[in-house]
Amino acid sequence: MSGRRSAFFVSDRTGITAEMLGHSLLIQFDAVAFRETTLPYVDTPEKAHAAVATINRAGQLDGVRPLVFATLMDAELNHIVSTADACHLDCLHHFLAPLEAELGTPATRAMGRSHSLHHMPDYHERIEAVNYALIHDDGASVRELAAADLILVGVSRCGKTPTCLYLALQYGIRAANYPLVEEDFKSAQLPEKLRPLKAKLFGLTIEATRLSHIRAARKPDSRYATLHHCRFEVHAAEALMRQHGIEYLDTSDKSVEEIATTVLHRTGLDRKIY
Amino acid sequence: MSGRRSAFFVSDRTGITAEMLGHSLLIQFDAVAFRETTLPYVDTPEKAHAAVATINRAGQLDGVRPLVFATLMDAELNHIVSTADACHLDCLHHFLAPLEAELGTPATRAMGRSHSLHHMPDYHERIEAVNYALIHDDGASVRELAAADLILVGVSRCGKTPTCLYLALQYGIRAANYPLVEEDFKSAQLPEKLRPLKAKLFGLTIEATRLSHIRAARKPDSRYATLHHCRFEVHAAEALMRQHGIEYLDTSDKSVEEIATTVLHRTGLDRKIY
Repeated sequence: MSGRRSAFFVSDRTGITAEMLGHSLLIQFDAVAFRETTLPYVDTPEKAHAAVATINRAGQLDGVRPLVFATLMDAELNHIVSTADACHLDCLHHFLAPLEAELGTPATRAMGRSHSLHHMPDYHERIEAVNYALIHDDGASVRELAAADLILVGVSRCGKTPTCLYLALQYGIRAANYPLVEEDFKSAQLPEKLRPLKAKLFGLTIEATRLSHIRAARKPDSRYATLHHCRFEVHAAEALMRQHGIEYLDTSDKSVEEIATTVLHRTGLDRKIY
Repeated sequence: MSGRRSAFFVSDRTGITAEMLGHSLLIQFDAVAFRETTLPYVDTPEKAHAAVATINRAGQLDGVRPLVFATLMDAELNHIVSTADACHLDCLHHFLAPLEAELGTPATRAMGRSHSLHHMPDYHERIEAVNYALIHDDGASVRELAAADLILVGVSRCGKTPTCLYLALQYGIRAANYPLVEEDFKSAQLPEKLRPLKAKLFGLTIEATRLSHIRAARKPDSRYATLHHCRFEVHAAEALMRQHGIEYLDTSDKSVEEIATTVLHRTGLDRKIY
């Protein structure tokens, strides 16, 4: 016995939905150690039988039956996987019946509609948004800055870059980012290029101690990473943003998802893709 | 009446899980036009009551009751939101009871455990992976190429960059990418820097017509974008990858999620973060 409980996320496509839902549920059980495995692209009866064999093998090794979070739209595949000696949690069909009743129309029950490339315009939106974020990272280019949906500002290493990339990849939003630096603090002015674009600005800030840790990991023993200097920058950046009426968010205890969704929520920007 | 059905994704945190699950279900109903709205960070009774008001208003405008996909761990908040005049689909509690029975232990039912920053090492893994992907995009740097978990190769604009960024952001995987260019095709050799790293290589390819469209959108009227030239490059790149035993994937009809999850699945790489 391994002392662990195996949990499987089984899907006819990427498995992302099963993983996210399953993981949200598993973290509610602190007392149990889980070994999480995704079985994606289970889209034929053969693969469904292979999944059953994998699940059963894990259960035999663990000495306890696995958990299975399944998002298999096809009824036959779902049935095959449900024959595994496991606790089978069906994450789609449970909701389809009430939805069919409510909407008064049958579900098409077609596999893998999510995350697949049905909409070319979505693909282009997304790739263009990623390119945009890459070109307009850290003030690298001010060309087409006016074409941004959003411009994140803040001190170096407060989380602007990953947030912009996440907004581009997940939501197709063209997010640029622009650093606030000593020159701006001295002049108490926004960077010149940003002044006409104030409506697009949103600020990120961070606790000085956390910033100092992050910077020290990149540039140990630099003035840039000292707590003293980080305190000065954070304080000055927050004062500058307040002075110019730029809303800002503290990223210190937030994941990239949390920062990105909070920025979307606060700015009221609509996602471009699903 | 708007002729639409409103669908709400209501969560005590980011709402990402509710969105993903809800969206997977809604796309099974082709016949209905949905207006999808996420209400994230509903983490107090006041916000729950405000969500109810928003949902009810939409229902009155639509003339038909909205759908609500809720991931509200707190029973009181879930109850408040369930009082809206809507079809309430509870995406968490339905699964908690069978999980509690199976695991023989109660769920902690703590809010917002997913996507929040409980694990600093995770945060660092992820940011470092994003930095790595940015530095090692498109062969920009070969320093620390040996530290890559994975190196994607393929012709320009076949999807390497967004895939690397997705792998970094979602899975904390350090993915570099390196273009295959005419010089490589002429010599029938892999780029010199990649030769010692063959075990880390994975190829992406794409249909020539689709590549030509993508390139033309960036550089119209260039030789680079002509169908003739794209055909030559794709053919030569595939021949080179086959010759050197590099597995490759056709990205033409795939979303970034599908490419990334397929690469993970085929290479057997483990995600570093959840």
